[in-house]
Amino acid sequence: MKITNLLFAAVALGLATGASAQMKPEDQIKFRKAGYSFMSWNMGKLKGQLIDNPASFNKDQVAAAANLIAATANSGMGALFGPGTDKDAGSQKTRVKAEFFQQPDEVKKLAGAFIKEANDLQKVAATGDAAAIKVQFGKTGESCKACHDKFRKDD
Amino acid sequence: MKITNLLFAAVALGLATGASAQMKPEDQIKFRKAGYSFMSWNMGKLKGQLIDNPASFNKDQVAAAANLIAATANSGMGALFGPGTDKDAGSQKTRVKAEFFQQPDEVKKLAGAFIKEANDLQKVAATGDAAAIKVQFGKTGESCKACHDKFRKDD
Repeated sequence: MKITNLLFAAVALGLATGASAQMKPEDQIKFRKAGYSFMSWNMGKLKGQLIDNPASFNKDQVAAAANLIAATANSGMGALFGPGTDKDAGSQKTRVKAEFFQQPDEVKKLAGAFIKEANDLQKVAATGDAAAIKVQFGKTGESCKACHDKFRKDD
Repeated sequence: MKITNLLFAAVALGLATGASAQMKPEDQIKFRKAGYSFMSWNMGKLKGQLIDNPASFNKDQVAAAANLIAATANSGMGALFGPGTDKDAGSQKTRVKAEFFQQPDEVKKLAGAFIKEANDLQKVAATGDAAAIKVQFGKTGESCKACHDKFRKDD
């Protein structure tokens, strides 16, 4: 395949630039919100099959949702919290608190805890053991909530 | 862990309901757009490290981006194209063409091709072979473009 074809395909897709240092704050906020939003859809599917309606439990769907959550956790979203993204930018609103940018060690701790729980969720989901997945789903949700409680505005 | 704690965590997270049959068209559109948007950020990272600036190639980052793309491809997004999502709903605009809902066999074919290329991208990305990853990145982008060309409005 020629490079020109690759470039053409990339341009046609409207791909974002890879380097967040060159990415506008507005776009960084847009992409990080998209990541959390799509992850929440997948957390919702797990809640549906593990808690709300256990009879609907589907091993493959649960594993797929867990894979998405783990992949999002490991995608390097920290790059989407660059300078200028501590407040609304362009058309994008953000609920992140100013404290998030002032407490990098605490953010790193909470992010690391979330990544660990998400990786464990992916592993246990692959086993198909609904009871064990439910426990790990709870731990993952709590690791999300720990960051929301500390660094996310209520609305 | 008590179920009440799980439920509390789920409610606190503002999780979407798992069953898209019960999900409003507006929310289905919101989540599918989020999925494509976050995926495009990851495609953009691949473009940056494979094409725009090969010197920045980082095996782990490339593998993480490919994992995200494959996990998104396999997340069952078809559930987010339910009745009422063929047009703008609430605050959500959609660029999907009416033909998308009239040609399920063609959609299935294109979606299957994309999933195959994304899975192959994940596999080749795990090897760290930049040249091979670049080829497969091109194929994946073309499978995205095939659907965009056919079923996505220009703006």
